[in-house]
Amino acid sequence: MTYFTKIVDVITEYYQVPLAEPLGDATHGIHTHFELPVVKIKLEDGYEGVGYTYTGGVGGRAICAMIEHDLRPFLIGRDASCVEKIWEEMNWHIHYVGRGGIASFAISAVDIALWDIRAKRAGMPLYKLLGGHSDSTNCYAGAIDLNFTKERLLENIKSYLSQGFTAVKIKLGQPTLAEDIDRVAAVRELIGPNIDFMVDANMKWSVEKAIKATKELAKYNLLWLEEPTIPDDYEGYKRISREGELAIAAGENLHTVYEFQNMIARGKIDFPQPDASNIGGITGWLKVANLAYAHNLPVCTHGMQELHVSLMAAIPHASYMEVHSFPIDQYTTRPLVMKDGRAVAPDIAGTGVEFNWELLKDYRRTF
Amino acid sequence: MTYFTKIVDVITEYYQVPLAEPLGDATHGIHTHFELPVVKIKLEDGYEGVGYTYTGGVGGRAICAMIEHDLRPFLIGRDASCVEKIWEEMNWHIHYVGRGGIASFAISAVDIALWDIRAKRAGMPLYKLLGGHSDSTNCYAGAIDLNFTKERLLENIKSYLSQGFTAVKIKLGQPTLAEDIDRVAAVRELIGPNIDFMVDANMKWSVEKAIKATKELAKYNLLWLEEPTIPDDYEGYKRISREGELAIAAGENLHTVYEFQNMIARGKIDFPQPDASNIGGITGWLKVANLAYAHNLPVCTHGMQELHVSLMAAIPHASYMEVHSFPIDQYTTRPLVMKDGRAVAPDIAGTGVEFNWELLKDYRRTF
Ligand SMILES: [Mg+2]
Ligand SMILES: [Mg+2]
Repeated sequence: MTYFTKIVDVITEYYQVPLAEPLGDATHGIHTHFELPVVKIKLEDGYEGVGYTYTGGVGGRAICAMIEHDLRPFLIGRDASCVEKIWEEMNWHIHYVGRGGIASFAISAVDIALWDIRAKRAGMPLYKLLGGHSDSTNCYAGAIDLNFTKERLLENIKSYLSQGFTAVKIKLGQPTLAEDIDRVAAVRELIGPNIDFMVDANMKWSVEKAIKATKELAKYNLLWLEEPTIPDDYEGYKRISREGELAIAAGENLHTVYEFQNMIARGKIDFPQPDASNIGGITGWLKVANLAYAHNLPVCTHGMQELHVSLMAAIPHASYMEVHSFPIDQYTTRPLVMKDGRAVAPDIAGTGVEFNWELLKDYRRTF
Repeated sequence: MTYFTKIVDVITEYYQVPLAEPLGDATHGIHTHFELPVVKIKLEDGYEGVGYTYTGGVGGRAICAMIEHDLRPFLIGRDASCVEKIWEEMNWHIHYVGRGGIASFAISAVDIALWDIRAKRAGMPLYKLLGGHSDSTNCYAGAIDLNFTKERLLENIKSYLSQGFTAVKIKLGQPTLAEDIDRVAAVRELIGPNIDFMVDANMKWSVEKAIKATKELAKYNLLWLEEPTIPDDYEGYKRISREGELAIAAGENLHTVYEFQNMIARGKIDFPQPDASNIGGITGWLKVANLAYAHNLPVCTHGMQELHVSLMAAIPHASYMEVHSFPIDQYTTRPLVMKDGRAVAPDIAGTGVEFNWELLKDYRRTF
């Protein structure tokens, strides 16, 4: 076969990007920065793709070490066009130390770089390469605000509304459920009945507490309760769905296609939220999106809005894209573009995620 | 509280240890060396514990990076005695990039070092600190021999018998099932009817092929078929157990307590095989052992025989400890001790795993 797009180099870079203010949730404590592992894949014919992943502050250097020491030697010399082959074989190459965790993040970064090359070679924007069901997607503002005072919480929600968002999410997991309810009531009062409103417990609750919480929360007309308990407890999710009174979302902590399969088949979720940065890149994300389609479930996302906008625009069953509080898009040449409350996919060849290296350069660290 | 055993330093070292000959299985290809990440934890009062994990050649540097950059800062200043608190909080500290994968290996190494300190401070050998049901355990020789010719396969089994082993395991996953059957038949003929005999497909088969294979293999009186298919497919394991004709073992690729729970409750295995190097150390291993006890299941192990001998000796429901073909024990001051076909636990204070640094020093690499 003469069509062979040979990988000749894989370069890994590591950034620690500070947040504008400390952001807290129920289980990860206070975030002060996010980690941004970046991978640049170079082909013999001169094409170059950029991929990346991110974390809330932990594990970034291990991700870089895996890309550098385990995936780079594996990738060099391979045909970059064969993303399915590379994805499957990467998963088996690191299988014993993989199946989620650091490996899923490392594979994601590599896979996104390969898709960037794929779309650039095709001369197509990613959302069209994937079939272009639309050129935009519904989106919501996802706050990380558990540590905010009630005043700051409401001020933050107001700022989302003034930016044009028509849907918002806040964190739950205060010391008492009464405090959570008080904040939910205040936000609902502020936004009125026509703004979609979601809440996120970040795995903090027991199954029994989650069921009880849904009954008190239901009167505030919430679109979903996100991650009420740990993602390993499929039976627990099923109980919360059956015995509780809210729709359930989860996905940021399901890091293999099989975890989504088990959660959907053995557990129960209404809004699967795959994140291309930790589900195995675009290849993994599409597998979950297709799984959701077959189960008559809509797809949502977690984080990395600058990339997910193209994936969500492409598919017919997109629900809500999260515009996450880690503003990776602010470090690209095209921060999130919204029109009539919807996020618009970039229209250039490639993933459309082009980092502004000048903005990032002070945050680069050794790994 | 005046009893506070403060951690003052955590030192990570990385070794690549060559194998005497190339060893192959059905999914990991050919092994030429194993990786040995080592962690040394120092306390303010002078106590020091040594922990470690291992891999078949991939991921070791990412494990070291996580210990160095994510766990070391987390551990320093904490009370080393509180192994349950540290274990639970380590799991949450790295949770977003964890739940298996690299994180399970990194946590395992740290946890084993903490148990080493715990047993040293108590002045007790590990098997007695854990309750000492016995001072030894049944064991078997686990070959990694898929790449061996039939002659070398049989010669290797003979060498196990001459070392005093009364149970052996070989790899399956040849291009055809007929070839696998031919090797099984030859080994059974060699060892006679009274040696326990297990086989290991290393996740290579589809569920349907595994069921078919059990029917052909059953006549050779095998104790178990190990990892017939991927560990994510709980339903598949249930089908293989229900429709097949062999007992099923698995565990080396179940890297959280919840994965064992789901495999036991939703899937089906007869011989759970937790490995303290990837299930979260001794703390994680004991949780799985207790889970197995409650389900009326015996416990087996995978790898690191020099440590598992003390864990298996301690518990009432130990089945077979694997003496793995990665000879970590040969690089300690006390290579495996066998008596009447059983492996004997070390009788010194601590885990009993004291590395021979002189033997290892040429294999140390930067990470
Ligand atoms: Mg969330
Ligand atoms: Mg095995």
